[in-house]
Amino acid sequence: MTAPEKTSAPVIGVFDSGVGGLTVLKELVRLNPGADYLYFGDTARLPYGSKSAATVAKYALSAAKFLEAQGARMLVIACNTATALAFEEIKKGIGIPAIGVVEPGAQRAASASKAKAVAVIATEATIASHAYQRALKERGIRAIEKACPLFVPLVEEGWIDHEVTRRVAQIYLEELFANGRGGADVLLLGCTHYPLLRPLLGELLPKGIAIVDSAESTAQAVAKNFAAKERKHSPTLKFFATDSVEKFRRLGERFMGRKLEAVEHVDIEV
Amino acid sequence: MTAPEKTSAPVIGVFDSGVGGLTVLKELVRLNPGADYLYFGDTARLPYGSKSAATVAKYALSAAKFLEAQGARMLVIACNTATALAFEEIKKGIGIPAIGVVEPGAQRAASASKAKAVAVIATEATIASHAYQRALKERGIRAIEKACPLFVPLVEEGWIDHEVTRRVAQIYLEELFANGRGGADVLLLGCTHYPLLRPLLGELLPKGIAIVDSAESTAQAVAKNFAAKERKHSPTLKFFATDSVEKFRRLGERFMGRKLEAVEHVDIEV
Repeated sequence: MTAPEKTSAPVIGVFDSGVGGLTVLKELVRLNPGADYLYFGDTARLPYGSKSAATVAKYALSAAKFLEAQGARMLVIACNTATALAFEEIKKGIGIPAIGVVEPGAQRAASASKAKAVAVIATEATIASHAYQRALKERGIRAIEKACPLFVPLVEEGWIDHEVTRRVAQIYLEELFANGRGGADVLLLGCTHYPLLRPLLGELLPKGIAIVDSAESTAQAVAKNFAAKERKHSPTLKFFATDSVEKFRRLGERFMGRKLEAVEHVDIEV
Repeated sequence: MTAPEKTSAPVIGVFDSGVGGLTVLKELVRLNPGADYLYFGDTARLPYGSKSAATVAKYALSAAKFLEAQGARMLVIACNTATALAFEEIKKGIGIPAIGVVEPGAQRAASASKAKAVAVIATEATIASHAYQRALKERGIRAIEKACPLFVPLVEEGWIDHEVTRRVAQIYLEELFANGRGGADVLLLGCTHYPLLRPLLGELLPKGIAIVDSAESTAQAVAKNFAAKERKHSPTLKFFATDSVEKFRRLGERFMGRKLEAVEHVDIEV
């Protein structure tokens, strides 16, 4: 295991339970190409979305420490569940600045909502944590929340534009917007898998509801606050997975929209 | 953490990555009520179905050792993925006899198939291991295999008798039985979640195809080989979960069809 080649570019560590955070990395590379990136997918222990706060905190902190030890000068927690359940514990446990996906997503959704009401969809654990609800409330916004546990397996099955996924999305959105949708005019995608469903969700949404994506919002926040000076730099990407490298590569390419070259297996203790 | 009350009944340890193995335990209690049972659900690390063989082996062995230390005199690996990927390693690592779900399921399917061809559905990892294919081949039976990764999340969403699950099952069964179904006359349920879908699958199956369930087959094999003498005994059940006890109880009751009283959280190192 070696650190990335020495360049003047800052190294940003990106962490997720699996491949979903690659939607954040994809946006980071696009919006902040002056940095190099280390990506850690804790695929041996995914999904975090159905686990308890204590378990998620333990796993996430060990991954964060690994990235710090590998030379990351900043950490992006590209995992809604880990951010929702363990952000404070991760921040306390490492010596580099960290940014999660909840605050940037909530901030952007709050700015976009004229009605001051935002509908949030995410995994079971993220919704149960009410992290988005709290972040939105601090900004004077009311949250209408809904867990959508089938979206992640549907995306991983590759059924992105598929009749079954369409029907599942219809059911979830109907449940979410029952009783006049609580006046929400923004749908916040609070899971890094969901950007792949954005076109489908856009078709199905009632008129007048805008989509805000936490993955994109986070990359925008990083680019704004930690913009690398050298804009002509071509980012070096290095990937670590705790489970099968082959599977990470195969699934991950769908999320990144490009080949994943440097993927390495790691086995970290918790 | 205490061992179950001292009785003359033998203690059987049942292990799964989550709550699915409760379909095996349910059959064990019915067919072999003379024993007491310890159930271990490795819910902090589930699902095993999408993980690599090395990862599954490591997790399964630590759980098996835990049950042995808790007083189990026999181990039932009520998890198709763990059986498929790690049966030999688990057997080597513990000092009590062990039975998995693959051999009993394959045995029963082989007996039921007049056409000498069996269709197998299971998780991605179980199918990729070809454990059922090998076990059936040893009995002179041809296997037609199909991974059904959406069934577990659909069952866990509680969509047991639901239009979406029906449509997903139709698609999977069509793919499985495309090109004249390879002559199979038995459908083998190679995942412990699938017994909950048995009524639905029964409706959708082409005529002349029987369903064999690995969970039930395993309980039958245990009852035959390790039958407890005392038949009037009322089995003591004790449950261990590595993640949230509350969630284990809530989900598990759907699988067991009864209240789960004694559920305890454990945190085991691997």
